[in-house]
Amino acid sequence: MSPTITEVDVFDIRFPTSEQLDGSDAMNPDPDYSAAYVVLRTDAPGGLAGYGLCFTIGRGNDVVAAAIRALRPYVVGRTLDSVTGDLGGFYRLLTHDSQLRWLGPEKGVMHMAAGAVVNAAWDLAARRAGLPVWELLAGMTPEELADLVDFRYLSDALTRDEALEILRRAEPGRAERAALLRREGYPAYTTEPGWLGYSDEKLTRLAKEAVAAGFGQIKLKVGADLDDDLRRMRLAREAVGPGVRIAVDANQRWDVAEAVDWMRALAPYRPHWIEEPTSPDDVLAHAAVRAGQPVPVATGEHVANRVVFKQLLQAGAVDYVQIDAARVAGVNENLAILLLAAKFGVPVCPHAGGVGLCELVQHLSMFDFVAVSGTWDDRVIEYVPHLHEHFTDPVVMENGRYRAPDAPGFSARMVPASLAEYRYPDGPVWTARQELTR
Amino acid sequence: MSPTITEVDVFDIRFPTSEQLDGSDAMNPDPDYSAAYVVLRTDAPGGLAGYGLCFTIGRGNDVVAAAIRALRPYVVGRTLDSVTGDLGGFYRLLTHDSQLRWLGPEKGVMHMAAGAVVNAAWDLAARRAGLPVWELLAGMTPEELADLVDFRYLSDALTRDEALEILRRAEPGRAERAALLRREGYPAYTTEPGWLGYSDEKLTRLAKEAVAAGFGQIKLKVGADLDDDLRRMRLAREAVGPGVRIAVDANQRWDVAEAVDWMRALAPYRPHWIEEPTSPDDVLAHAAVRAGQPVPVATGEHVANRVVFKQLLQAGAVDYVQIDAARVAGVNENLAILLLAAKFGVPVCPHAGGVGLCELVQHLSMFDFVAVSGTWDDRVIEYVPHLHEHFTDPVVMENGRYRAPDAPGFSARMVPASLAEYRYPDGPVWTARQELTR
Repeated sequence: MSPTITEVDVFDIRFPTSEQLDGSDAMNPDPDYSAAYVVLRTDAPGGLAGYGLCFTIGRGNDVVAAAIRALRPYVVGRTLDSVTGDLGGFYRLLTHDSQLRWLGPEKGVMHMAAGAVVNAAWDLAARRAGLPVWELLAGMTPEELADLVDFRYLSDALTRDEALEILRRAEPGRAERAALLRREGYPAYTTEPGWLGYSDEKLTRLAKEAVAAGFGQIKLKVGADLDDDLRRMRLAREAVGPGVRIAVDANQRWDVAEAVDWMRALAPYRPHWIEEPTSPDDVLAHAAVRAGQPVPVATGEHVANRVVFKQLLQAGAVDYVQIDAARVAGVNENLAILLLAAKFGVPVCPHAGGVGLCELVQHLSMFDFVAVSGTWDDRVIEYVPHLHEHFTDPVVMENGRYRAPDAPGFSARMVPASLAEYRYPDGPVWTARQELTR
Repeated sequence: MSPTITEVDVFDIRFPTSEQLDGSDAMNPDPDYSAAYVVLRTDAPGGLAGYGLCFTIGRGNDVVAAAIRALRPYVVGRTLDSVTGDLGGFYRLLTHDSQLRWLGPEKGVMHMAAGAVVNAAWDLAARRAGLPVWELLAGMTPEELADLVDFRYLSDALTRDEALEILRRAEPGRAERAALLRREGYPAYTTEPGWLGYSDEKLTRLAKEAVAAGFGQIKLKVGADLDDDLRRMRLAREAVGPGVRIAVDANQRWDVAEAVDWMRALAPYRPHWIEEPTSPDDVLAHAAVRAGQPVPVATGEHVANRVVFKQLLQAGAVDYVQIDAARVAGVNENLAILLLAAKFGVPVCPHAGGVGLCELVQHLSMFDFVAVSGTWDDRVIEYVPHLHEHFTDPVVMENGRYRAPDAPGFSARMVPASLAEYRYPDGPVWTARQELTR
C-alpha cells in the first residue's frame, strides 16, 4: 500500500520588512515580505512531508491561504504514488478544475495557490527520491519531462514534438554539466545595493561590497524620480567600475512613452537591462519599449502564466525572461516557460528574493542548465540576502554564485521556530507590534 | 456630518444549477452559479445600503468572499460623501494598495473582489442620488467621467484628452437618446437555447421560442465535438430561419489551429461571431484566429483588465468587445473599456447571465448608448433567463429588448429570502443536499 497525503497545513507567515525599507521600490514602498506556506503531511514513515509556499508582500497573504485551503479536497487522501508518480496529472488537476478555473483562468490568487501546492508536491517527490529537485528533473527522460507540461494554448509557438527535440538536443552532456555545476555553482546577481529606500551612502557601500563578494552584476530600483535615478546610476557606476553589469528595475511604474524617455536618459550609463518597465500584462507595450530605446528589456516576475510568456516571446518583446518559482503553477508551468525560452533562444534570468524564492528558483535554473538550454551564458539568478535564515536548507552563495543544493527536496522547508514566531496575526512578532500601537 | 459606511457584509450564495445543466459549455460542464455578495451598510437614515456581487460558478466562491473581507479596512468608517463624491478615488484606493496589488496586479480573485466592492459603492451612490446607475453616469460631465478612469497603462492607446473628446462628441443628443432608450429598450440576444447539455429537441424548441419572443440573435455553445456542432448549428439555423443571427461560443476550448479549422467548418452556417475561441489572455492568438477564418471574433468575459482589452483592440484581434460587469474592477474600469472600444470603433456586446450579470451590465450598455458611443447599431446585450427572481429589481425583457431600469441603484440587490435559502454551506438548500449524500 502506498502512503497517502493526510493533511494540507497552511500557515500565514509575515516578516515586518517594511520597518527597514528592505524591498522598497517605485511601486512597493513598504512591503512586509510574507509567505502562504504549505505542508503536505503524509502517513509515510519518518514523517515524510512536502513543503511549498506562495510569496506575497503582506496584506492579502490570508487570501492566498484561503485559496490553498480551497484546494484541500484535491489533495487529501491521495496516495503518494498517484501524486509523485504523475506530477503532470496532479498539476492539471489543480489548474483545470472547471469551477475554480472561473477565478482565473490560470492567474492571480487561485493560480498562485495552485503553484504553492504543486511545488510542495515536487518537494515531496524529491524528498521521497532522496534528490534535490534540480537533480530529480535532470534525471528524467525527455518524454517524462514533456508529460509534465500542459501544451494547451502553446501549440502555435511550441508543440510537444518541438519540446522533445529541445530536450533531446540537451541530453548529451547532461552528466558533464551537472558535474561542472556542482564544482562551480550557478552565476548570480545581487539586488542588495539598489532598494529605493536606501541612502546614497548605503548604495555606494553595498555596491562596492557586492563587487568584492564576487558578483558580476548588481541591480538598482528606478522609476520614482529621474534626477535621483541619474545620480544613483552614476554613483553605482563609479562604485562598481566599468566591467560590472548594472541592471535597472522600474517595477511596472511607466506607460510606454515615459519608459522610452526615461531609459533614453539612463542609457549613457549602460544599464544591462530595464526590468518591468510597464504592466506585466502588456505584451505590446513591452515590444514598443524594446523598439523605442536601446536598453534590453526584461520581465516576468508578475507575468501570470505561460500564455503571456509565450506572447512576450512571439512578439519579440523581451531580451530576458524572468521566471518566478511561486507565481505561476509551480515546476510544471515553469518547465513550459523554460522550453518556450529555449525555443526562442532567449536567456532565462529568474526573479528571486522575497521569502524562499532564491531557495526554490535555483533548482529551475540549474535544471535548465543541465537538461534544457544547456548553457549559462548571459544567464544569472537574482540574489537578495534577506530571510534565508528561516529555511532549513538555505541557499549558499560563493563568490557570486549559487552552490548547487545537494539536500533532498526543493529547499522550501521553513524552520519550525520561524513559523511559530512570525505567524500572522498571532505570532509573538506580531502580537508585540499590536500592543505597541494600542 | 456625512453618514458613514459602518460594515461590509459578505455572503457566499450558491445555486445548484449543475443539476439542470443550465450553463453547461465545453469548458464548464457543471457550473453551480454563485455570487460573492456584498452589502455596504451605512448609518444613513432609512437603512441606505449599497449592494454588489462577484459572479463565480461554485467552488472558490469562498475565496472571493475572503478577498472581499480583505478590503474591509479600506471601506468601513469612510464617509458616504468621500466615497460617492469621489468614486474614481475609491476605485484607485481598492486597486492600488501596494501590498494587495502583488496578488494580481489587477487580475483574478483580488481584482474581482475589488470589482464587487466598487460596484456596491456605485449602487450606493445611485440609491443616494435616487437614480439608476445608467442615468447617474449619463448625467455626469465629460470631465467628471474622465476622473473616474485610471489611465495608467492606457496612454499609448487612449489619453485623457482623447477620452474627453469622445465624451464631448456624444454630449449633443444625450437627452434624445435617453428618451428613445426609455421608449424602446436596449437590444438583447439570448443564450437560452444553446447550452451544450441540452438535447436537440430542447435546442430546437428553445430556438423557435426565442424568435417568437422577439430576439434577433441567439447563441450556441460549441467546441466539444465538431459533428455535434455541425448538427446543432444546422438545427438552429432551420429553427430560426435565415434572418436571425446565430453566434457561437467555444469558451476558450481551442488552440489557434484548431479554432481556425473548426470555424472554417462552421462558417457555411454563417455564425455571427465566434466567442472565446482560445485563452482570454492570448491577444496574439485572437488576432491569428481572426485572420485565419471568416467569422468575426468576440471575447471579454474572462479578460482580466483594461490593459488586455487595450491590446486586443490595438492588435485588431476582436470584432466585438464583451465587457463583464463583475470581472474587472467595476464601473470605473468598464468605463475605460467602453472608451477604448469607442476610440477603436469596435462595438461592445456585453457578457451576461450568471447571477445578476444581466441586472448590472444593462446599465453600462445603456450609459454607453446615451453618452459614449452614442449608438446601439450592431450591439446587443446577452440575456439568459435564469435566476432573476432572486433580485429585487430584476431585468425586464420586452420583445427581445432590455427595458431601461428606473429604480434607483445598480439593480444588484438580492431578495433577503434568497440570501437565507441559498447561503453556502449552511442555507437549507445546501444542508438538504448534504443530508441526501450522507
